[in-house]
Amino acid sequence: MADNHSANNGVDSSPVDILVSEVGPRDGLQSIIPIMPVAARKAWISAEAAAGVREIEVGSFVPAKILPQLEGTAEIVAHACSIPGLTVAVLVPNARGARDAIAAGAHKITIPLSVSETHSLRNLRRTHEQVLAEVAEIGAEIRALSPVKRPHFEGSLSTAFGCTLEGAIPDAQILRLAEALMERGCDEVGIADTTGYADPAAVKHLVRILRDTVGEAAVQGIHLHNTRGLGLANVLAALDAGLTTVDSSLGGLGGCPFAPGASGNIVTEDLAFMLEAMGLRTGIDLEKLFAVREILKQHLPGEPLYGFSPDAGLPLGFATADEKRKEAA
Amino acid sequence: MADNHSANNGVDSSPVDILVSEVGPRDGLQSIIPIMPVAARKAWISAEAAAGVREIEVGSFVPAKILPQLEGTAEIVAHACSIPGLTVAVLVPNARGARDAIAAGAHKITIPLSVSETHSLRNLRRTHEQVLAEVAEIGAEIRALSPVKRPHFEGSLSTAFGCTLEGAIPDAQILRLAEALMERGCDEVGIADTTGYADPAAVKHLVRILRDTVGEAAVQGIHLHNTRGLGLANVLAALDAGLTTVDSSLGGLGGCPFAPGASGNIVTEDLAFMLEAMGLRTGIDLEKLFAVREILKQHLPGEPLYGFSPDAGLPLGFATADEKRKEAA
Repeated sequence: MADNHSANNGVDSSPVDILVSEVGPRDGLQSIIPIMPVAARKAWISAEAAAGVREIEVGSFVPAKILPQLEGTAEIVAHACSIPGLTVAVLVPNARGARDAIAAGAHKITIPLSVSETHSLRNLRRTHEQVLAEVAEIGAEIRALSPVKRPHFEGSLSTAFGCTLEGAIPDAQILRLAEALMERGCDEVGIADTTGYADPAAVKHLVRILRDTVGEAAVQGIHLHNTRGLGLANVLAALDAGLTTVDSSLGGLGGCPFAPGASGNIVTEDLAFMLEAMGLRTGIDLEKLFAVREILKQHLPGEPLYGFSPDAGLPLGFATADEKRKEAA
Repeated sequence: MADNHSANNGVDSSPVDILVSEVGPRDGLQSIIPIMPVAARKAWISAEAAAGVREIEVGSFVPAKILPQLEGTAEIVAHACSIPGLTVAVLVPNARGARDAIAAGAHKITIPLSVSETHSLRNLRRTHEQVLAEVAEIGAEIRALSPVKRPHFEGSLSTAFGCTLEGAIPDAQILRLAEALMERGCDEVGIADTTGYADPAAVKHLVRILRDTVGEAAVQGIHLHNTRGLGLANVLAALDAGLTTVDSSLGGLGGCPFAPGASGNIVTEDLAFMLEAMGLRTGIDLEKLFAVREILKQHLPGEPLYGFSPDAGLPLGFATADEKRKEAA
């Protein structure tokens, strides 16, 4: 969710109805083998911000030996923070990463908590209680900061729609973990379909019970995958359920290992096209956004880029959400 | 929409909530260059019916010199009509094609009417009035048949969400053409997003105004494309608006000329997965449906097949719509 940092930098930005949060420079890059140089990552972030994207997850504070693709995140955060109007988000695995993120000046910090404990143990080698202890430590440190320096703090419920090891996770367990995140200092609880198991009915159900439990304001965003082709249908369900922030990746970067045409992340270009076509303002200039793909093509040669709208082009006579409002007025 | 033919053949078929209407053997095959032999097309239709698909558009009655890919449609209709429980649909361009379809024994006949007159002139070399005259002729002939031999007659509004030549078509023009189709003897008015211009808001709007004009019962089905990646999101909007029949193509056959990963038709496999995951009964056995792809791979070597679910597989612990009902009961 857009926080005060984007509103406080003096830029007169037009309002948006739905916040498209680009996660390609973090989630996309960490899922592929080639390493994109820091300078190219900066250029990508700048170009997407110039196309009107208001929030970008620019990296992750993890040791370079674990994720060499994301080395240089501090430098990239500093660069991104120099872009007016941009909310600079990062992922952190623990309190140490959060400290680095705060030092670098990130506006938003997300820590994942897998609702499947088996998945949490396999991926992070931590139990739920161990992750929650890190969350509490981060929460306390953030609260000790002066309000102007305080980043927005999100706990993200990963494998929220089921886990490849455990299958479906009981609602009661998800809700208990959401409450635990909020009690330990999170401002917001995110929902992440790590495994691509979500369907529109499940999205509506989970958003509803989470909002009933921790409040509407604390449940605003969702991170969906397109593993079974349902990515944008699930977005539509999330919008119907009242969410206002949707994660996506330029070119669907971070493809799925399964099949040609299969993509892990939902594609920013198609998402932004859908929202604007529906009359929902994103602040994004679609043609400018499509052009940013050139940076990926240049620096990640051979890496498949997904998305249909850039090649199909905009419909004849297409009106953006802003133009539709002006026509209707 | 499933018509009496599927209910009258004595097969005790379980109820479905949403009818998935497979159009690959017609729309898919006519959009690609390779020609699938008649025997392979019969095997495909049989295998999909055995997987639980209740309606298949098996061909089109057009001269073989125009569409050599669909030669042998009469023989294929006869084969498909021998499959218990299957509604056999065909496309016809005019009254002559409809006469052939009736003679072959088709259960459902669809004639397209492009709401863009420019598109109609370019594609069919006919004005709206000329197409409507054909519709009236077909309507009269169908009404002269005994009720047991009478096929379901659909007029399909193509380019309903805009045309690549004219752009958006005014609502009033679409509604006038829908009324004209019903007045000339159609049982139903279909909606077709020929150009892939639809978005969820536009789908809901068009379904609503069409139903207000010609009645709910006459507006049940939609044919969507995935040209800009919005196919399944548009399906979700159509379901929300009350539609009960959705066209799709196995493997998304009939790919779009634009880009790798771009597909013309929405993919039957992903559609059926989404519906079942949402608890909407399709009558389809997903694993059996996925296996039908082998027939396409064998007889259309090198032709790209789209869809994510067959490669990703079903989620761990996945419950079909029927299983969900039993759990809830």
